[in-house]
Amino acid sequence: MGHGTNRIEDMSSPNNETAANARETVVEIHSVCLPPKKTTFQKLKKRFGDVFFPDDPLERFRNQTWRNKVILGLQSLFPIFTWGSQYDLKLFRSDVISGLTIASLAIPQGISYAKLANLPPIVGLYSSFVPPLIYSVLGSSKHLAVGPVSIASLVMGSMLSESVSPTQDSILYLKLAFTSTFFAGLFQASLGLLRLGFVIDFLSKATLVGFTAGAAVIVSLQQLKGLLGIVHFTGKMQFVPVMSSVINTRSEWSWETIVMGLGFLIILLTTRHISMRKPKLFWISAASPLASVVISTLLVYLIRDKTHAISFIGHLPKGLNPPSVNMLYFSAAHLALAIKTGIITGILSLTEGIAVGRTFASLKNYQVNGNKEMMAIGFMNMAGSCTSCYVTTGSFSRSAVNVNAGAKTAVSNIVMASAVLVTLLFLMPLFYYTPNLILAAIILTAVIGLIDYQAAYKLWKVDKFDFFTCMCSFFGVLFVSVPLGLAIAVGVSVIKILLHVTRPNTLEFGNIPGTQIYQSLKRYREASRVPGFLILAVESPLYFANCTYLQERILRWTREEENRIKENNDRNLKCIILDMTAVSSIDTSGIEAVFELRRRLEKQSLQLVLVNPVGSVMEKLHKSKIIESLGLSGLYLTVGEAVSDLSSTWKAHGQP
Amino acid sequence: MGHGTNRIEDMSSPNNETAANARETVVEIHSVCLPPKKTTFQKLKKRFGDVFFPDDPLERFRNQTWRNKVILGLQSLFPIFTWGSQYDLKLFRSDVISGLTIASLAIPQGISYAKLANLPPIVGLYSSFVPPLIYSVLGSSKHLAVGPVSIASLVMGSMLSESVSPTQDSILYLKLAFTSTFFAGLFQASLGLLRLGFVIDFLSKATLVGFTAGAAVIVSLQQLKGLLGIVHFTGKMQFVPVMSSVINTRSEWSWETIVMGLGFLIILLTTRHISMRKPKLFWISAASPLASVVISTLLVYLIRDKTHAISFIGHLPKGLNPPSVNMLYFSAAHLALAIKTGIITGILSLTEGIAVGRTFASLKNYQVNGNKEMMAIGFMNMAGSCTSCYVTTGSFSRSAVNVNAGAKTAVSNIVMASAVLVTLLFLMPLFYYTPNLILAAIILTAVIGLIDYQAAYKLWKVDKFDFFTCMCSFFGVLFVSVPLGLAIAVGVSVIKILLHVTRPNTLEFGNIPGTQIYQSLKRYREASRVPGFLILAVESPLYFANCTYLQERILRWTREEENRIKENNDRNLKCIILDMTAVSSIDTSGIEAVFELRRRLEKQSLQLVLVNPVGSVMEKLHKSKIIESLGLSGLYLTVGEAVSDLSSTWKAHGQP
Repeated sequence: MGHGTNRIEDMSSPNNETAANARETVVEIHSVCLPPKKTTFQKLKKRFGDVFFPDDPLERFRNQTWRNKVILGLQSLFPIFTWGSQYDLKLFRSDVISGLTIASLAIPQGISYAKLANLPPIVGLYSSFVPPLIYSVLGSSKHLAVGPVSIASLVMGSMLSESVSPTQDSILYLKLAFTSTFFAGLFQASLGLLRLGFVIDFLSKATLVGFTAGAAVIVSLQQLKGLLGIVHFTGKMQFVPVMSSVINTRSEWSWETIVMGLGFLIILLTTRHISMRKPKLFWISAASPLASVVISTLLVYLIRDKTHAISFIGHLPKGLNPPSVNMLYFSAAHLALAIKTGIITGILSLTEGIAVGRTFASLKNYQVNGNKEMMAIGFMNMAGSCTSCYVTTGSFSRSAVNVNAGAKTAVSNIVMASAVLVTLLFLMPLFYYTPNLILAAIILTAVIGLIDYQAAYKLWKVDKFDFFTCMCSFFGVLFVSVPLGLAIAVGVSVIKILLHVTRPNTLEFGNIPGTQIYQSLKRYREASRVPGFLILAVESPLYFANCTYLQERILRWTREEENRIKENNDRNLKCIILDMTAVSSIDTSGIEAVFELRRRLEKQSLQLVLVNPVGSVMEKLHKSKIIESLGLSGLYLTVGEAVSDLSSTWKAHGQP
Repeated sequence: MGHGTNRIEDMSSPNNETAANARETVVEIHSVCLPPKKTTFQKLKKRFGDVFFPDDPLERFRNQTWRNKVILGLQSLFPIFTWGSQYDLKLFRSDVISGLTIASLAIPQGISYAKLANLPPIVGLYSSFVPPLIYSVLGSSKHLAVGPVSIASLVMGSMLSESVSPTQDSILYLKLAFTSTFFAGLFQASLGLLRLGFVIDFLSKATLVGFTAGAAVIVSLQQLKGLLGIVHFTGKMQFVPVMSSVINTRSEWSWETIVMGLGFLIILLTTRHISMRKPKLFWISAASPLASVVISTLLVYLIRDKTHAISFIGHLPKGLNPPSVNMLYFSAAHLALAIKTGIITGILSLTEGIAVGRTFASLKNYQVNGNKEMMAIGFMNMAGSCTSCYVTTGSFSRSAVNVNAGAKTAVSNIVMASAVLVTLLFLMPLFYYTPNLILAAIILTAVIGLIDYQAAYKLWKVDKFDFFTCMCSFFGVLFVSVPLGLAIAVGVSVIKILLHVTRPNTLEFGNIPGTQIYQSLKRYREASRVPGFLILAVESPLYFANCTYLQERILRWTREEENRIKENNDRNLKCIILDMTAVSSIDTSGIEAVFELRRRLEKQSLQLVLVNPVGSVMEKLHKSKIIESLGLSGLYLTVGEAVSDLSSTWKAHGQP
């Protein structure tokens, strides 16, 4: 037996004959400790640290010389210093190839997504120039391809155009878009600075799967305008008005547009499908949008005198991003709208950017720091709002292409921005005849991949409630509105947490014969009841929201156990053991419930014993003097010790 | 060793020399079971039962003859059938004494509280007649004294008078009061019928202590109008406007009113103090309000020709409650206000009624059924709204007097109602000269006891966050508004739950030498690390809201442990054991986090092992195929078994 001092040994099964000699064996009981004493300030500090600094950001600075501290500080502010010194020609070659590849995607997508947000197409290109440059200096992800994305564009477009018409009030609309972008950036940077990044955790994966799919359906429906050549289209975003608008404008449908649009859509979808089947051929789907733009522009140019049925972009201004600080709009009239739009697009684009960054960082085995990413994305959007850009973030599809094309560092973003720069300076006139239908086809191809029905099916299989949340956000977005759909889904997720806390599980435990292990009777067939004891485990913190329920539930367990004993003529119930291992926290209402429960059980001549309360619970029980009132024999470290000690006490007192 | 088959014995401390012979001992490992299979429907049914029928209300009906079932059904609908048959003269004598005692309180308080709600005083008496009669038939508490209460009166008065003036639009105001009462009753009865009683659990004790104290301060300040004889008083309820109104109307203060008011206030407070010190003398404080009313009325009558400075009630109509069905007001204009007021007063009065009922039931050792009480209180208010009554519930102060005076059954409520009936029919003219100041003094005396500073101090001592919630609701009510103060406090309570879930505790466990017990290293000095292992316990469900945090936190634990090992030249870390005992639930995001964590640890050549996942967690892990990917050696029932089995495997493979 080595030097072990534990002499409980087989006391664990007092229901069999060997328990008869229990009085002889010496039972060693371990007392339950209080956690080390801490002042309120120390506790607050720890709690504060847990909430705001879970990653212990100052860890690296400890035990360093001043010089190193400065270097580390610079590196953590500007990650470019971390990898910049080791940058060489080989890395550069990879980055140039990947940068040019994503540029060929970013230019057509930028123009398309700007149209999705009801903004002039050129704003999409501006947004693909400044933000990537800023991100490459501040961002900690090596593979994120930065620029406008579909979801944020859609949400901004839908929220702003509900109050301001993008065609009639185009200047005000543009101002509001830049102002929203400013607030989105401010909100994102504040989340990072205040280390409140956990806010985005409340958008669960289930919510996002549903939301993204719903938004993708809406975006796809919006593209019917371009693909069918409709001129007078509804400004609304919901399923019903869009569909009725499509049907009511049948007279405007143009067969030339439909034929050409469908043709390119099929080409784009086919190339996408090929690349998905054979990841090595990623360049096919990466190159096809730009190729389609070139070909379709040529086609429209060639038939420009034959038909006017196919609408095209028209004149785009040449030159770099004009400053737009003077367009920021802080007067009262639409400020609330701008802030609301900013917060919602900010949180959505942040969620996408961070999720994308984390996905590829995990794939390539490096760390992305959430709070730092938030600051990078936030500053990039604030700077963007002053240079005629709207909300940008890391795009999932372009980042995937970036990784496949061999990107090694954020330099690929710089290369991409340079390509956009060349386009802005010299190539803008070439887009004059680019048809709107090709933009619609590009958007459709991009968003169709966002409908992740496999993920939804997995949610259904593993967790019905998560599936329900997912459906709430899907149908909420589709039929109600984008922000409301999101709010409903977050609300449902929070209600799930609250419901779990309000109605926690209680389990009846039994002993697994021959061991000191106590486990659920329902789950472990071999576990058996210990006569005289009712062993219950509570699987939740004890809060105001559940303490009445738990008290009633435990009394019901007692009643049922006594009925069972009466039917089977078993040994009388004498003690309720409450396993508190999973009670991770308690509040004053919970403490009172324990008091009250003990009082009520005592009136029925039953003893209440607590087992293994965790540190914080133990401390509060101690402060509220309940420990004293429970006495020495009311608190044990393990269920096994409680059972052994109490049975031997009863034996010593000559009770059966 | 009896028949035990456990041969692990002293493998629990592989850090000492005895572990060297580990390879020879046979390690018996218990496998982790899946819970018994259930269909989605069965699970939904169980979940549904847990949420809505935690008390198993049909339990009593099982295995009964049809005749008994009918009797039991009647008894559970009308608790009067339960005790009615055993009622005798002795019980009746007790009930008459207590009934008359509470009537002597109810009559002056009824008049006073009606004034608090800006209603005609007679409505207070009506409300002390019909609702007690209905409750005595439907209610399950034997000691609840039913009638108007201060908090609900205040809240109704403050919410309605913000939109409608009780002096200028008195008929509309009265209509709205009855309509709100109807909605309050409807809401209360629905909560009971739909078994949604847990909604009131969200008003935690901390919230209620703060809210009640805040409301009591507001009510006290309102009484300055009566006590100082002010005629033009503010209609607002917040601290600042009330105090400035008191000061601005100094010219209206009447010294006669102040002298007389203070005199009676001192008498009332003194008698209250005496009764509190010596509970046997409860009748002193019970009788003093009525006595004060009688004496003060006489005084005013005697000096009626000398001064007009003291305002009095004036004419009150004689006769029983007039029907008020025609006063219920369902047109659109103020419907939202009535519903809102109804829900808030409904939930507050319900909380008070149920808390009072539970308190005295627990004191006298019988059960009060929450859902049934809700239905009783709800029906009583719905009936009340049709017979010129406003919101009523069980009053704490009068119920305490009722218990002290020896009430045995709900008959004491019937006796009280009869006394009110006599008053309504014959004694109304006697109240003509009753001064308003005495009503103010009665209210002040009643609400001062509601400021429970001792409870607040205890909250501060035991749980700082609960104290914070309490202060939020106190200052919210005092300075913002009654419903907003309440909403803030509930919000803070919910955020506390969410914060606990978002930033759960993780603990590093060590082995207590010589046992199979693993406990927190920080809390148990004797516990020691097991070389090669990092044993972590997670104290919370694994949800979307915390899975990113937990993943990062566990990686940080790993990093820190490896640094510690490097410094101390300890044995290399090889395995992370995650004790899942306290992980009471998991969702799809949580499962993915476990997957991802395992992948990232594997890249660092570390093994991840899960210990003792609870039933529902095990099931979801199984469905998501993570169990298969963990393999046989990735899942254990206890930390001890995991440590023994893994160390012996490593030994068998010749690793250190």
